[in-house]
Amino acid sequence: MNETEVLPHRVLHLHERVLGRNQEQAARNRELFCAAGVTVVNVLSAPGSGKTALLERTLVDLKDEVRAAVVVGDLATDNDARRLARSAAPIVQITTGSLCHLEASMVARACEEIELSTLDLLFIENVGNLVCPASFDLGESLRVVLTAVTEGEDKPLKYPTLFKTANVAIVTKIELAEVCGFQPALLRQNIANIAPQATIIELSARTGQGLSAWYTCLRGLIHAHA
Amino acid sequence: MNETEVLPHRVLHLHERVLGRNQEQAARNRELFCAAGVTVVNVLSAPGSGKTALLERTLVDLKDEVRAAVVVGDLATDNDARRLARSAAPIVQITTGSLCHLEASMVARACEEIELSTLDLLFIENVGNLVCPASFDLGESLRVVLTAVTEGEDKPLKYPTLFKTANVAIVTKIELAEVCGFQPALLRQNIANIAPQATIIELSARTGQGLSAWYTCLRGLIHAHA
Repeated sequence: MNETEVLPHRVLHLHERVLGRNQEQAARNRELFCAAGVTVVNVLSAPGSGKTALLERTLVDLKDEVRAAVVVGDLATDNDARRLARSAAPIVQITTGSLCHLEASMVARACEEIELSTLDLLFIENVGNLVCPASFDLGESLRVVLTAVTEGEDKPLKYPTLFKTANVAIVTKIELAEVCGFQPALLRQNIANIAPQATIIELSARTGQGLSAWYTCLRGLIHAHA
Repeated sequence: MNETEVLPHRVLHLHERVLGRNQEQAARNRELFCAAGVTVVNVLSAPGSGKTALLERTLVDLKDEVRAAVVVGDLATDNDARRLARSAAPIVQITTGSLCHLEASMVARACEEIELSTLDLLFIENVGNLVCPASFDLGESLRVVLTAVTEGEDKPLKYPTLFKTANVAIVTKIELAEVCGFQPALLRQNIANIAPQATIIELSARTGQGLSAWYTCLRGLIHAHA
């Protein structure tokens, strides 16, 4: 028992070194993105919260006004990349194997496949995980966390690390709120308590409800970086 | 870039040592559980798939025939422990801080708080995460993975590591299948392809649909260990 209690400190120490290297690469990514004039949005959530559905809809709805691309991370399959590719936007798949998050070096490599200077906006769809990706800066301008009404109102309280780092918190599948007996005001309160810095947007990628607020947010971001 | 590519191997090496220690502790847990005559079920899923809701209902429905307890892991809050404690079953909370999974040593420590020999069944509700807990054996008899219909049909394909280790795959929130346009046959096919060893149960903890199959599974398990 004593031995197993000692190990986490050694893991923590190595973990800090990994995080340090990641931070250095994230800074290089940020310089690259800045030089190319592209706004980068890191999209995070639990599995199945609707990251791909939101990006699919966003790429189509904004195709005439925003030049966008997506780097998408998954443990396995290129299902999401194939869904997103229907929009004709450039899509690069990162398959992580068993790794539970994206790191800045993976994003840097994926970006070699894209002509960044031709873009206004680059989305990075992270691996579905509400814990581990929180610590890995990818060099993004904006960090967006999604949580679906079907997951319940308590996710910000139970997974605070990621919510605390978010600039925007998107409540997805809002069209299912009533049938799930979901209380939107309670989730808004929980987000405000854990992540008072985060702008809250409630939307449905299926019905289109609330999407205009999301698009306004993206337009403001692009103009700020122009 | 070369440096960041070298690091994962060193992490992997240490990770293997951590896993080795965990495996040793899991074997000790398994001996302890066997000696106490208690059947242990490790319950895993993404955040918000309904682990706590299913256990709440199970504890109440089986209270007259099964002596059960729960060890529950969360990054933060004791919300789930408080929900489960309404059943009057013994509940032990493990708060992991920023750790994304439970390890065998944490379970061993939590079990010091419970009189195992008075129990038929011990549930371990893992941290909500479809990736990292897969590698950590806790000494359980049965590994159950939950996936909600609201998460879509493709989760077994995109998170194969955990599904491949599951004895039972439970499809939760089945009452929402129609409103979500969810295709149960497609998910069953995806589970069967990735995890042919897993028994599939579709249920709703809210309406009670399908719970009898889950209880039959638990009764069979307890009798097998009796």
